[in-house]
Amino acid sequence: MLVNGKPGNLISIRDRGLLYGDGVFRTFIARQGKAQLWALHSQKLQHDCTALGIACPDIALLSAELGRLLMQHPDGVMKLIVTRGQGTHGYAPSAQTIPTHIWDVSPLPDYPLDRASHGIKVRLCQLRLSQQPRLAGIKHLNRLENVLAAAESNDTDIAEGLLMDAEGNVIEGTRSNLFLASQGELITPDLSLSGVAGVQRDRVIAWSTQHDMPLQIRDIGLDEVLHADELFVVNSIIGLWPIRELEQRCWSNFPIAAKIRHDLNGQDQCYSL
Amino acid sequence: MLVNGKPGNLISIRDRGLLYGDGVFRTFIARQGKAQLWALHSQKLQHDCTALGIACPDIALLSAELGRLLMQHPDGVMKLIVTRGQGTHGYAPSAQTIPTHIWDVSPLPDYPLDRASHGIKVRLCQLRLSQQPRLAGIKHLNRLENVLAAAESNDTDIAEGLLMDAEGNVIEGTRSNLFLASQGELITPDLSLSGVAGVQRDRVIAWSTQHDMPLQIRDIGLDEVLHADELFVVNSIIGLWPIRELEQRCWSNFPIAAKIRHDLNGQDQCYSL
Repeated sequence: MLVNGKPGNLISIRDRGLLYGDGVFRTFIARQGKAQLWALHSQKLQHDCTALGIACPDIALLSAELGRLLMQHPDGVMKLIVTRGQGTHGYAPSAQTIPTHIWDVSPLPDYPLDRASHGIKVRLCQLRLSQQPRLAGIKHLNRLENVLAAAESNDTDIAEGLLMDAEGNVIEGTRSNLFLASQGELITPDLSLSGVAGVQRDRVIAWSTQHDMPLQIRDIGLDEVLHADELFVVNSIIGLWPIRELEQRCWSNFPIAAKIRHDLNGQDQCYSL
Repeated sequence: MLVNGKPGNLISIRDRGLLYGDGVFRTFIARQGKAQLWALHSQKLQHDCTALGIACPDIALLSAELGRLLMQHPDGVMKLIVTRGQGTHGYAPSAQTIPTHIWDVSPLPDYPLDRASHGIKVRLCQLRLSQQPRLAGIKHLNRLENVLAAAESNDTDIAEGLLMDAEGNVIEGTRSNLFLASQGELITPDLSLSGVAGVQRDRVIAWSTQHDMPLQIRDIGLDEVLHADELFVVNSIIGLWPIRELEQRCWSNFPIAAKIRHDLNGQDQCYSL
């Protein structure tokens, strides 16, 4: 672990990341010393910092630190947190605050391999996401909704929970973005009021353009989800998992999901350090 | 500062308080070695921990730690944070996680004394609070809405910002609860969908019962706020401040606010250690 570039695993109890969740984060995978999709993650990091008015650390500096970490930990899940820094008292941020940046590395997850090929079982979360246009899309540190949603079930047979908002729109998984494939089109929820717009979601959107497959970004109700030809969830750690079961409905063929997954996996090296 | 009962000012970068804002906090005042309203704050702490499924540290233990701090710091703002503890990876909490509790002390604020007597100037925040019944009322660590709202203005002449929700209900100040006095009644916003239900708000509600003054807890629009006979905001640090200016409207007499403030100040010692 590195805290502001120095080896360490502790931060101040006055850091605004702890006090207010005042910061953003990224998680991505390293394999054989290569950081997957770092270019895209660093772009998102800059975007999200800007959205919160946090001065993003220099990407060249972060890349150099990542390079040092990869020498020690060639394989693992890399987590990068940027907070607004140590607080003056009170919610109002000070322009003088120096952001804190934190690297953490943990072992690669050992998900069952058949999740990617045969799909996963998904449940519908009871918690409904709130709508906040100022925070929607951002991977910020205010994640209590995700915590409460994930806490609803400890059924290890269920790999993900789907979250709806208070108006009944299906938004995302607790830690993934959702896509529907129906009648030769891709559809993914609009995230302008809720949810996290992940790097892997952007890659699927880019894939649809490259492959001339129409893609819609819009509000989606549960009924439309349940009647889709295929469903799949994506994030930078799991890659792409088709959904084989949701609310008593089952799917067994995922030709579009399999094609996209294959193509995205093939591109991965392009974004490595 | 104390972290889990030991002197220190650092926590793990894997604490879920940092990773997800997965925790709650309290702030209150100590004067001359007495912690004001600790009994009420410890009750709220237990309530808020329960609402998030966090095992609240034993209040007798926290009281003993507070007693030690008061010997060193007889006057100051006491902050107590309880997080769910160090994370296993992922949003889902583990039953094995041991909560982290943190004490911090900072100097008493030196607010101008005339704020309590002559009232404060208040602005209307642009940010609208989201609605989340599972988190409303709780003083949790997901406070980015408050941060963004407080960041909207650096006018030192403005002592507080009022927050509305997306539906146009006036909810609270960025760090205080709001009361209206109109035609011999008190009115305070319903906080079942947004906002933080503070200790000082509870005390004003209790005051109204003790003094046979009718009090309503319900949705309040901006127009009703602007036409109230009196407005005031409360929290455990500021006590009670009347509002003298908001959106081009001015108030100069605050007989009810002054009476309540006088009575609450007189009660303070009752709740001291």
